[in-house]
Amino acid sequence: MEPLIYLDNSATTKPCETAIAYLNRVLSSAWGNPSSRHRLGLESERFLREARQAVAARLHCREEEIIFTAGGTEGNNTAVFGAAMKGRKRGNRIVTTAIEHPSVAVAMDRLEQQGFEVIRLKPEKNGSISPEQFFSAVTPETVLVSVMLVNNETGAIQPVRAAADAIRQSGAPALLHCDAVQAFGKMPIAVEKLGVDLLTASGHKIHAVKGIGFLYLRKGVQIPAYLVGGGQESGRRSGTEPMPGIASLYGALKELPEEKNQLPRMQELWYYARDRFTALPGVEMNSPEGCLPYIFNMSVMGYRSETLLNALDQYGICVSSGSACAKGKGSTVLLESGLLPRRVDSALRLSFSRETTKEEIDRTADALGEIIKTMRKAYTK
Amino acid sequence: MEPLIYLDNSATTKPCETAIAYLNRVLSSAWGNPSSRHRLGLESERFLREARQAVAARLHCREEEIIFTAGGTEGNNTAVFGAAMKGRKRGNRIVTTAIEHPSVAVAMDRLEQQGFEVIRLKPEKNGSISPEQFFSAVTPETVLVSVMLVNNETGAIQPVRAAADAIRQSGAPALLHCDAVQAFGKMPIAVEKLGVDLLTASGHKIHAVKGIGFLYLRKGVQIPAYLVGGGQESGRRSGTEPMPGIASLYGALKELPEEKNQLPRMQELWYYARDRFTALPGVEMNSPEGCLPYIFNMSVMGYRSETLLNALDQYGICVSSGSACAKGKGSTVLLESGLLPRRVDSALRLSFSRETTKEEIDRTADALGEIIKTMRKAYTK
Repeated sequence: MEPLIYLDNSATTKPCETAIAYLNRVLSSAWGNPSSRHRLGLESERFLREARQAVAARLHCREEEIIFTAGGTEGNNTAVFGAAMKGRKRGNRIVTTAIEHPSVAVAMDRLEQQGFEVIRLKPEKNGSISPEQFFSAVTPETVLVSVMLVNNETGAIQPVRAAADAIRQSGAPALLHCDAVQAFGKMPIAVEKLGVDLLTASGHKIHAVKGIGFLYLRKGVQIPAYLVGGGQESGRRSGTEPMPGIASLYGALKELPEEKNQLPRMQELWYYARDRFTALPGVEMNSPEGCLPYIFNMSVMGYRSETLLNALDQYGICVSSGSACAKGKGSTVLLESGLLPRRVDSALRLSFSRETTKEEIDRTADALGEIIKTMRKAYTK
Repeated sequence: MEPLIYLDNSATTKPCETAIAYLNRVLSSAWGNPSSRHRLGLESERFLREARQAVAARLHCREEEIIFTAGGTEGNNTAVFGAAMKGRKRGNRIVTTAIEHPSVAVAMDRLEQQGFEVIRLKPEKNGSISPEQFFSAVTPETVLVSVMLVNNETGAIQPVRAAADAIRQSGAPALLHCDAVQAFGKMPIAVEKLGVDLLTASGHKIHAVKGIGFLYLRKGVQIPAYLVGGGQESGRRSGTEPMPGIASLYGALKELPEEKNQLPRMQELWYYARDRFTALPGVEMNSPEGCLPYIFNMSVMGYRSETLLNALDQYGICVSSGSACAKGKGSTVLLESGLLPRRVDSALRLSFSRETTKEEIDRTADALGEIIKTMRKAYTK
């Protein structure tokens, strides 16, 4: 049997060797509670600090600006609810986009129910919000702007820096939050240059394990904690630190190539995929040119996503019909990007990792070609 | 060098072999996202269900009543905030105790700031709230009662069933939440008999890893989710499921002896420890007779906890001065239990696991005896 082809890396990635090795080190020897004051606790605490420094180095920020979380959802909830609560005395307006991940979008719905005015900017044809949209939407009453860096379904890169400039220009007291779950580890991120106050990332999208993430919180910015209790993470996130996850993240970062060195190869792979897939009948690209080249979204017109996904699965090829976090539902992101429902219902998302090869793209394109051919025959019989 | 003696199992436990094995299985083969619709996702989903059934079997409840969380703190926050939000239209009163874990206590402080009337019952001499206190405190306006099953510092068992009866008798619309983090896996828990609507547990207290827990939510009871987003866990807890943690919990349950079969041995060990330690000069018991025999709290009058803890650490013996979740602070639990500050400042908590032996108790008592002797000499010189 041919090896599995895994092209669903935006849903989750295979834990890498170093991630697994570091995690197991924590399980077998450094398993103490970092809050305990005996030798096992202190050993854990030292390891925790080392891991935090590694994350901070990657983001070009200070170690005390990193808060470990249980994942992207917790990070996004903490940032959005926390920033809104903090801002509530100074204003009532929140600016976000119509294509955020549900862990931001649903939080926004709740805030709206609580009386906040939530502005959801819609992307233009290229899948991105324009800088001008931020400049018009952010007013002096705005207390929070939340925009993702890379859209999880199309890979479209959003103008986060423009959002920061819009805040500055308007004189708004707004904090800027960026959901960087799909971006972290795949494109260079320097938090200061980006101009964000809060930034969310997740470990399992970069070959660490599920159940770990972190929130960057700019020095000097304070928001109420979302998980409250024992006061871990300097009172900013309570709960015994998820050490195995943290260790795996630390290990994954050791193996992670520098983003800018990896991008050219991914770019080449992405164009290669585009050439191969668009040569198939009825294939239209949904990901825009210039998107993050780890995400490749297309529609195979006339066929339902689910059908194609299942057919590819028979070939041992794992892809997605959209976001794994919206199991079964039609893609809001693509609809909000202005695509017709027919096209949205035919969408396939391929998402790459640094280990994805041209041969895998070839095999996938060949399989999809065969599938389309077979189905056509079945229909015309 | 003599092997380490670890008597801080209420802070965290060493992951057991089966927990580590199951976790690694998930890392190397079943690492898909359970929400993905291809074979890797479906395999993860099957594994997730199997793990959920194992947890439910242990609690004698239905699988759909189990919500996986990132740990005890998230579980307690979810239960307390969720139940209060749900109840806010029907009443304003919350009954809890003065000796809850910070992940309940701090949540209660927040609710109080939001306008809830929070009643904090104080334990009697034996470290427990009396049933009568619940009967007087729960009124028809009460919307939430939250009481731990086993106190994390003294091991004192709380009358949770009486709280359930008090709710029933008063006709209150209250939900009953129980923090069972220190109890789960150590004493038999049948949720229906206990009469709880919500119950929190954590994995790393029973030889699974840090970063996993679960919330029992009785069938038919609905509370708003605390982590919102992709709608995992039937919409009750969003975020990609922490599969490695879940696997470790599943593995830990396989190794966990039946609680009622293990208790007699622990009881014997606890009495053995009591006899050994109370024979030392100045030692007074803080844990009451009849407490959960995994927790052993005493004060060594005249010496500070920190000093004793560090001295024991030199002998390779890991104990705690109180809760690991209250690093450095004096124990609220002991103060609220009516102990004098002097005694509280001299408290040591030893917490056992099923692997703790009499020989370890002997070595610890011998070491503590030597430490006291040496310090006395130093003081009298």
